Amino acid sequence: MTRLADLNNEALSALAEQLEQELELVSGNRLSLDLTRGKPDAEQLDLSNGLEAAIGGNYIASDGTDTRNYGGLRGIPEARELGAEIMEVPAEQIICWGNSSLSLMYLSVDLLMESGIWGDARRWGATDAPKLLTPVPGYDRHFVLTERLGLGMINVAMNDAGPDMDAVCKLVGDDASIKGIWCVPKYSNPTGCTYSDEVVARIAELPDVAAADDFVVLWDNAYAVHDFQFPRRPLANLLELAERAGTADNVLLFASTSKITHASGGLGFVAGSPATLNALEARLSASSVGPDKVNQLRHARFLGGRVEEHMANHAAIVKPKFEAVQQVLDQELSDLDIATWTKPEGGYFVSLDVRPGLAGTIGKLAADIGLALTPPGATFPYKDDPQDRNLRIAPTFAKLEDIKTAMEVLVLCVKIATIRDEISKR
Amino acid sequence: MTRLADLNNEALSALAEQLEQELELVSGNRLSLDLTRGKPDAEQLDLSNGLEAAIGGNYIASDGTDTRNYGGLRGIPEARELGAEIMEVPAEQIICWGNSSLSLMYLSVDLLMESGIWGDARRWGATDAPKLLTPVPGYDRHFVLTERLGLGMINVAMNDAGPDMDAVCKLVGDDASIKGIWCVPKYSNPTGCTYSDEVVARIAELPDVAAADDFVVLWDNAYAVHDFQFPRRPLANLLELAERAGTADNVLLFASTSKITHASGGLGFVAGSPATLNALEARLSASSVGPDKVNQLRHARFLGGRVEEHMANHAAIVKPKFEAVQQVLDQELSDLDIATWTKPEGGYFVSLDVRPGLAGTIGKLAADIGLALTPPGATFPYKDDPQDRNLRIAPTFAKLEDIKTAMEVLVLCVKIATIRDEISKR
Repeated sequence: MTRLADLNNEALSALAEQLEQELELVSGNRLSLDLTRGKPDAEQLDLSNGLEAAIGGNYIASDGTDTRNYGGLRGIPEARELGAEIMEVPAEQIICWGNSSLSLMYLSVDLLMESGIWGDARRWGATDAPKLLTPVPGYDRHFVLTERLGLGMINVAMNDAGPDMDAVCKLVGDDASIKGIWCVPKYSNPTGCTYSDEVVARIAELPDVAAADDFVVLWDNAYAVHDFQFPRRPLANLLELAERAGTADNVLLFASTSKITHASGGLGFVAGSPATLNALEARLSASSVGPDKVNQLRHARFLGGRVEEHMANHAAIVKPKFEAVQQVLDQELSDLDIATWTKPEGGYFVSLDVRPGLAGTIGKLAADIGLALTPPGATFPYKDDPQDRNLRIAPTFAKLEDIKTAMEVLVLCVKIATIRDEISKR
Repeated sequence: MTRLADLNNEALSALAEQLEQELELVSGNRLSLDLTRGKPDAEQLDLSNGLEAAIGGNYIASDGTDTRNYGGLRGIPEARELGAEIMEVPAEQIICWGNSSLSLMYLSVDLLMESGIWGDARRWGATDAPKLLTPVPGYDRHFVLTERLGLGMINVAMNDAGPDMDAVCKLVGDDASIKGIWCVPKYSNPTGCTYSDEVVARIAELPDVAAADDFVVLWDNAYAVHDFQFPRRPLANLLELAERAGTADNVLLFASTSKITHASGGLGFVAGSPATLNALEARLSASSVGPDKVNQLRHARFLGGRVEEHMANHAAIVKPKFEAVQQVLDQELSDLDIATWTKPEGGYFVSLDVRPGLAGTIGKLAADIGLALTPPGATFPYKDDPQDRNLRIAPTFAKLEDIKTAMEVLVLCVKIATIRDEISKR
């Protein structure tokens, strides 16, 4: 196949007809395919069934805590050590809490709005129209959380090495109402990019660069160990860089075991400076007598010291699915010059950019024949993709053979929508 | 012994001297006794070690959900059924979430402040100086939570059959800034009283009686099944009564398994009308992809259908400790007429009222010789017991023999402080 732009009108019409026939054939199969959510599949979940035997009747943590009883607001030592293994920050700078890092992010942003985390008068909610920077495309739940808590959002472009830092620095330097930035620094959702060392270093300095005196980096390292190859790809250490830059009170780091062990039954982690951990602990103590330390012990005993080995087993399941996605995209779309896509080496997503104005149409076309995609626009704040061009592909949950079929359907939809568009514009 | 008031000055001084000698002897033993917190002891926790084997390799819930994966914001069916068994409300009116009912209370009050739960403009935070009624003595964590979320508190007396409802009705009828009431309806913390049918019926009507149009009953049924005898003592059904009274959108009911299974590793429950559950679910979905359903399944399989049997095993451990408390109080304080105390038939606490002005002194006297009591004042908002007379005794965590010793020390302190006071006032 040649570039679409090089086809004359006649060839284009013939191609459209042929592809629509193919689509009709496919839709006759009553598809029920789903590439929507970043969920592990059952085989991945099975890797962690050993959790159930990990307690072995001994509920006492390494510091003598009976994990079954109340208390322990920061989590037991071995769970915080597990966090350290995943996040590459010292265990004593980690709180292990709950089953969801998203909940910890919500709690943190809420705290920043209502009370601040510095023991002084600074709180975002007392300022005029506070907002967060949102590199796009990004993670829909960050956007929903931000909007719900009453913050505005300002988009900034996501490049292959992370957010466009020149744009970021200019924005936060000029506008004191910009209070923070959302980051998924490794295998970012959805592009799969990993922030370069230079980008991380510049992010560590952002609280100093910012016009706001209460700027916070929200570092959601959801895919810290979710590589396809090991030893894992390094990521510059934000907390260390922030300590060196004197901005450690203005970075909060998050991670969880949700896509490491059982997605619903894992552990959440938040890390930061001693001062911010104190503020978080005080907030947690107002609403709880402590986290589920039994599950912490279960996880620490099952996973502690062997996170990479465990993640390599995930990779063996996940990587072929990503390869299938790339194979179909390469084979079907490379020559046409009608789309670009990312080639992540880890994480849960592939980001596909089609021609502007066509993402919604393609999503609808796919849905009509039984292929569910993450709703176009979801990767942008307010579900508004200004160019209507980004599609997120989440290939982990479906079976390998279904992913191939789903991708074939998807590229068919991309081609048809693009050709129709090309014809209508000539 | 006779009533203290009947002793002449000489007899009083002699008694004081004798008791102080006894105290000196005791303090020579370097005590380390603790009656502070309502925690289960290790023997109680052992009753639930069967939780670990309850999954048995089968993670699929009754509705086909793989509990290991994301999702399921209301909890799995069998966990909600377990909630129904404890709370006596229909499973479909329950959300099972997290490991802590306190967290669900915090979330609910926060939601009532910020967004409301009725899908309209009503939100407490938009009104002038919102407050909650706090029956006293009461649960310290309710007070801390309320203060933290920016609400005021107004005390109302707790009687043997529940809050003084005449006072409650007058207060909420007169003052629209009173937005709700905290209730621990069964074996209330710390008095151990259970609300009478009449009190519950009047509470169900409170949202109608209230001057506020956004009044909410916060029904923390923490000790719903924590009886010393079975079948369990009945409690009038608030949700049914509220449905009949047309106030169901204005009651929120809470419970947990924290003092049923493992205190840190249990399940929290919140129940309410369909409309309020929708509001809670929307809030939860903004901060999480779902609760720990594996732990829900574990609990449902371990405990479902046999809650009372399980609680009878708790009672066999806890009841003798409460009897020891009563025995010492009866034997040492009955005749003197210097204190009154409650005789709960369940729950985790005994409430001891000494002469006004002496609780703090007694707490200090006890602390000095190594007996830790819940800090006097803690059972009141802002840690302010206006009469400085209430002490909370929490006898579950300590060993039976230590409880006897601790109680003997406590009554010694009560007597000495009271006699000193009596002498100083003559």
